[in-house]
Amino acid sequence: MQRTNFGNMQCPIARSLERVGEWWSILILRDALHGVSRFDEFQKSLNIAPNMLARRLSALVESGLLERRCYSDRPARYEYVLTPRGRDFRPVLIALLAWGNTHFATEGPSVLLADRKSGAIVEPVVVDGSSGRLLNETEFHYVPGPAASERTRRRLAYASGDRSLGERPPAPPISKSPRRAKGRNRHG
Amino acid sequence: MQRTNFGNMQCPIARSLERVGEWWSILILRDALHGVSRFDEFQKSLNIAPNMLARRLSALVESGLLERRCYSDRPARYEYVLTPRGRDFRPVLIALLAWGNTHFATEGPSVLLADRKSGAIVEPVVVDGSSGRLLNETEFHYVPGPAASERTRRRLAYASGDRSLGERPPAPPISKSPRRAKGRNRHG
Repeated sequence: MQRTNFGNMQCPIARSLERVGEWWSILILRDALHGVSRFDEFQKSLNIAPNMLARRLSALVESGLLERRCYSDRPARYEYVLTPRGRDFRPVLIALLAWGNTHFATEGPSVLLADRKSGAIVEPVVVDGSSGRLLNETEFHYVPGPAASERTRRRLAYASGDRSLGERPPAPPISKSPRRAKGRNRHG
Repeated sequence: MQRTNFGNMQCPIARSLERVGEWWSILILRDALHGVSRFDEFQKSLNIAPNMLARRLSALVESGLLERRCYSDRPARYEYVLTPRGRDFRPVLIALLAWGNTHFATEGPSVLLADRKSGAIVEPVVVDGSSGRLLNETEFHYVPGPAASERTRRRLAYASGDRSLGERPPAPPISKSPRRAKGRNRHG
């Protein structure tokens, strides 16, 4: 299990990772987006141990990605339905799908995304919603938002440094964090 | 540690997850895309234990996402540089950034993506590369690719089932896999 709490980091990527917990959670969300909702359905689809599945479903409910709903009174039976927050995870899954198909589908793609009407296969890309421009590294960079800490600002300043000149940019952000990971004090 | 080998699953999402290994790997890739390349730089930026960092860097090199390059002979020093495969992970990170900003930046966003020239903040969305259409669930669905197994085909057929009629679609794919997870034989 991951011990570091990524949810306390300011980076939105780290916080997202904290919420989806670990790999199984991402595949559970994938199945939920495919319409799977019941415990035994998830279990069969994923071939996952029941205790692991129960833990992951609870964590996803706690993080507000799934909602637990009663669908039968006698016997009491529950299903797990995506919340809007869980449904919004879809673009991340599509980006993972595209990356996997490009780099790890050695025998050819086994899953593709297609237009429901025309059946045309689509090539997912990430663009700016207003201009439609591809978000490539040359034209777009990360900038601090209104809530950015000093540490985040330093990290992004480093990231935006122009490396094309062949000069090394200044050292990356070093914060004298009071929290030290265990096993790091070999110099202390 | 995750024991299941996701790389053996046919799903391109699962295979991608196997390659990035765990959360730290994703943050290492994030930093690498920010221009970080040296061991001590990663360590300071991530506040990660050195043994954990060393393991993760090796795994990323082995998966072909980073390349280890000597940048100094005496003393021997190495840096870790993104391969094209590693660089292609950027859209996944951007999708995670957007999701994190929407759902977990309670105090306001701390990291945003902006046009380098105009400084305009962009809203990342995932679209079809050729038509520019948003890849929403209503219009687009997953379909089996040429290499899809019978199990994958059943899973996607289930996913594409029309649930708007209020009827439950047929049961999800159940493969009589010879591999059974431990602790699942409570009915056996």
